[in-house]
This record gives sequence, structure tokens and C-alpha cells, in this order.
Amino acid sequence: MNTNTAYVHGYSSQETRRLGDQADTLATLLHAGTAYPVGSRVLEVGCGVGAQTVHLVRNSPGARIVAVDRSEESLAQARAHLATQEPGAEVTWRTADLFHLPFPARSFDHVFACFVLEHLPAPGRALAALRRVLRPGGTLTVIEGDHGSVLFHPDSHRAHEVIGHQVRLQAAAGGNALLGRQLQPLLRGAGFGDVVIRPRTVYADRTRPSMVEGFTRKTFIAMVESVRDDALGAGLTTAADWDRGIADLRLTADGDGTFHYTFFKAVAVNPGP
Amino acid sequence: MNTNTAYVHGYSSQETRRLGDQADTLATLLHAGTAYPVGSRVLEVGCGVGAQTVHLVRNSPGARIVAVDRSEESLAQARAHLATQEPGAEVTWRTADLFHLPFPARSFDHVFACFVLEHLPAPGRALAALRRVLRPGGTLTVIEGDHGSVLFHPDSHRAHEVIGHQVRLQAAAGGNALLGRQLQPLLRGAGFGDVVIRPRTVYADRTRPSMVEGFTRKTFIAMVESVRDDALGAGLTTAADWDRGIADLRLTADGDGTFHYTFFKAVAVNPGP
Repeated sequence: MNTNTAYVHGYSSQETRRLGDQADTLATLLHAGTAYPVGSRVLEVGCGVGAQTVHLVRNSPGARIVAVDRSEESLAQARAHLATQEPGAEVTWRTADLFHLPFPARSFDHVFACFVLEHLPAPGRALAALRRVLRPGGTLTVIEGDHGSVLFHPDSHRAHEVIGHQVRLQAAAGGNALLGRQLQPLLRGAGFGDVVIRPRTVYADRTRPSMVEGFTRKTFIAMVESVRDDALGAGLTTAADWDRGIADLRLTADGDGTFHYTFFKAVAVNPGP
Repeated sequence: MNTNTAYVHGYSSQETRRLGDQADTLATLLHAGTAYPVGSRVLEVGCGVGAQTVHLVRNSPGARIVAVDRSEESLAQARAHLATQEPGAEVTWRTADLFHLPFPARSFDHVFACFVLEHLPAPGRALAALRRVLRPGGTLTVIEGDHGSVLFHPDSHRAHEVIGHQVRLQAAAGGNALLGRQLQPLLRGAGFGDVVIRPRTVYADRTRPSMVEGFTRKTFIAMVESVRDDALGAGLTTAADWDRGIADLRLTADGDGTFHYTFFKAVAVNPGP
């Protein structure tokens, strides 16, 4: 069984659309409380295609935002996305690896990372790398999901199985789709202080059609569906079982269906050296 | 395998303490937004030992609250609890079965039921019985948990197993510990309109010691622990496996542990006949 795939979110135009949909639908939920002062130096790491950058810019006019990603292709898409969505925004874009950030120590007042740690084999080491570029007293904001929080009606063992395959593929690629619950110990372990975790819960049913469409269908189910070929290629499941699981998952977005997911938003302070 | 036990929450003094702790810790979370006008006729069904009644009274001074439960013993405890906590409160106490409420149709402006449907074999029929006593335009508020939302660190298969035994015992007794996700279709199915469901998420870690103590330890773990004898008697598990599962669950309330649970709060309107 080969689960050693190179699956990472965000590397197709379909994925780009999905990540845009996700951020637009969840923006209020995820970005509430995140606004940086005019003139403050803010680093967004792993900005990807700019899905969150556009909300940082909107919520923190006047902040000096630097956005980095290790993928030049993603950065090009992020620039284009911002040019369309926030034409006047001045964002500094840099191609860089999170573990080798090209900035002196203490360069930033605030650091922001959304859906980044979940893809990294060494999230604790990543947090230490972020602390290096943060001034003492500066804040780090981290947002992560946790697939263990998924709950839906009608319940379906087959639907949970396809989600489990996505979790396994992400783990095989060195990531962790169950990371949200670990933010508190990870941040403490990396030397951050005043760690505060807040759950941000998505609930969708027929009375919230934009959440059903934007989150249940276009974000969550789309994300799971995107690993179909990898799951089959890795021998995790059969096409028939996969398709039955996805069909069951789609029922949660129809008629009487309900869907629940929790994100975890952490804010922590760099206490200094 | 005999899982046909008579397990119901609230029938021991330890349970009474547990339910009191639970309500006090969760009161802000669960009761936020629930305040009834002066003079309005409010029915609380399944008030049990009065754990929620005390908060209804506090948040709705001047409302005419009638609290019913089918257990005279619970009602006696509820009276005593209110007499201690809210000495001046005027609550009308009635022993009654939810399915045979001794009130004319349309007797109440508002009905409130917290952690009641989860114990009933026919929650849809129960909701219809509640709609009968509610005037057209009156509201029903229902709060239920859903054990499918449980998520913790450190993760543990054995801990999830003991929770699963509690779910199975509650199902065998005719209840459903996974009911929260179904509130939307249940309320619609019973003829209610304007159904709005809001998730109310509990998150506990070392930075929230009162939630760790009041919810993780004294509410959730205590509830699971209370079915130990039933689980062993039903042959669901061995004493050794049970104890290992509980020990793992306790780790989620220590040191780096984290714990997450979502309640679902529904408000719906009786559109009339």
C-alpha cells in the first residue's frame, strides 16, 4: 500500500477556486478579532494563493504586510488575486521557505499562519522559526482545522471512511489533518506565552444555504474529493466504495442534511529570548 | 450481550452534583440569548433536578415559569435546589410526563427543553406534544449535545471506546447521545417553522481551569464514568479496558491536554395549526 503521495492543497486551478470559496465563506468566522495597527509589520507565512491575504489586507488597512510562500506559482496567483480583489493594496511578496525565512530576528510585530502547520512534518520546529522573526511582545496567530470535529446528518460510516482516507494521505505526505486540538501544547512547546485558543465552529443546514454551498460542498467535500485519485492509487479503497462514501457525504448538504466542523484559532505572544 | 439497562442521567446524589456543576459551568454558553418577557408563560419540560431551571429564573425575572418532570424525586431536589440558589423565585412545579402534559392546548408562550430529547425513544413525537401546548407564534428552545463532536488531546482509541460504550448504553435505554446534529430535521418534521440551530462549542485547556474542572472532569468524564457498572454488566468491555480508557480520558484534563465538545441550541416557532 503506497500512501506516499505528494498531495498538498492549492496546486490546481480547481483547488485555487476552492480555497477562494473557503476563505470568502469563512472569512468572518476566522478573521474576527484579527486586525493589526497602522504601520505594524505583519508577516503572513504560507500565504498560498492569497485566500487569507485578501482578508488580512481588508481588516488591517495601513499595516505593512509581507506575504511569503515557498511556491512561486502560488505567489503569482496570490498577486493576481489581490490585484483583482483589493487593487490598491500594497503587499510585499516573497518566495521563501518557512524554515529559512530571509528576515533578521525580530523583524515583525505580528505573524499570521492559516492552514499551514497542518502540512508540515515538524510543526513545533516551524513555530520556533516563526518566533525567531517576531519581536518580543509580538503576537502569532495560527488557524487550523481538525477533521476529528466533523459531524453530520445523515450519519454514514462510508462517509467517515473517505474522510479517513484524506486524513491518512495527508499524514503520509507529512501533514496532520487532526492538528487543531494540539495547538495549545505545540505553541507552549515552542516557547510562546499567553496562548489562547478559541474554537470557531461552522454549522450548516438548509437555513444557511451559503454555508452549505460555500463550506459543506465547495470547501469540505471538494477537499475530500480532490484526493480521489491518490486514495485509489494508494490502494486505500475501491472506486465503488469511494463513490458511495462521497455520495453519502453529499447527502449532508441536501434537504434535511446538517454539517458541523470546528476550526481552532490560536493567539500567542513571543515572551522574548 | 444485554445492554437493556435502565440508565438515565440524574438518579443519584452524585449525578445531581454533576448536573449542577454542568449547568453552572455551561450556563453562560447555553443560556445566552434565552430571556423571556415579564409575564410570559414559560414551560420547562424535563427540568430534572433544576440544574437549568435556576438559570431560566435568573435570566427571565418576571416570567411565569412552570417546570415539569416525570420524577417526583427529581422535582423535590429541584425545589430544594431553587430554594437555596434563588430563594425568592416563584416556580410552579408539576409532576407530569412530557407525552401527557396536563395543560390545555396553547397554554404557553414559550417552551424550553434542555438535555431531554436525548433520553426519549420518540423525539419527534415528543416535539409534537410540546407544540400542542405552545401558542401559535410561541417559541420552543431545545438544547442537546452530540458525542460525535468529542475531540481531545492526547488522542486515544481506548478513550473513544469508553465514550462509545456510553453511547451504546444510552441507545439501548431508548435514547440517542448523537442527537444534536438531528435537531433541524426533527423540528421541521414536527411542524415547527423558522428553525435556527446554533452550535455552542466548549473548549477546555490549561488556560481555562474552570472549564477543565467543571466540564471535562466533572461533567463529561463523570458522565462516562457513571455507566461503568452498566457497561461491565452488559459485557461491553472488561474492567481493565474500561479503566485504561478512563485513564486516557483523564489525561485530556491534565497538563497539555485539550478537550472539545459541541452543544446544539435550537430555537423554533410554532406556526399554528
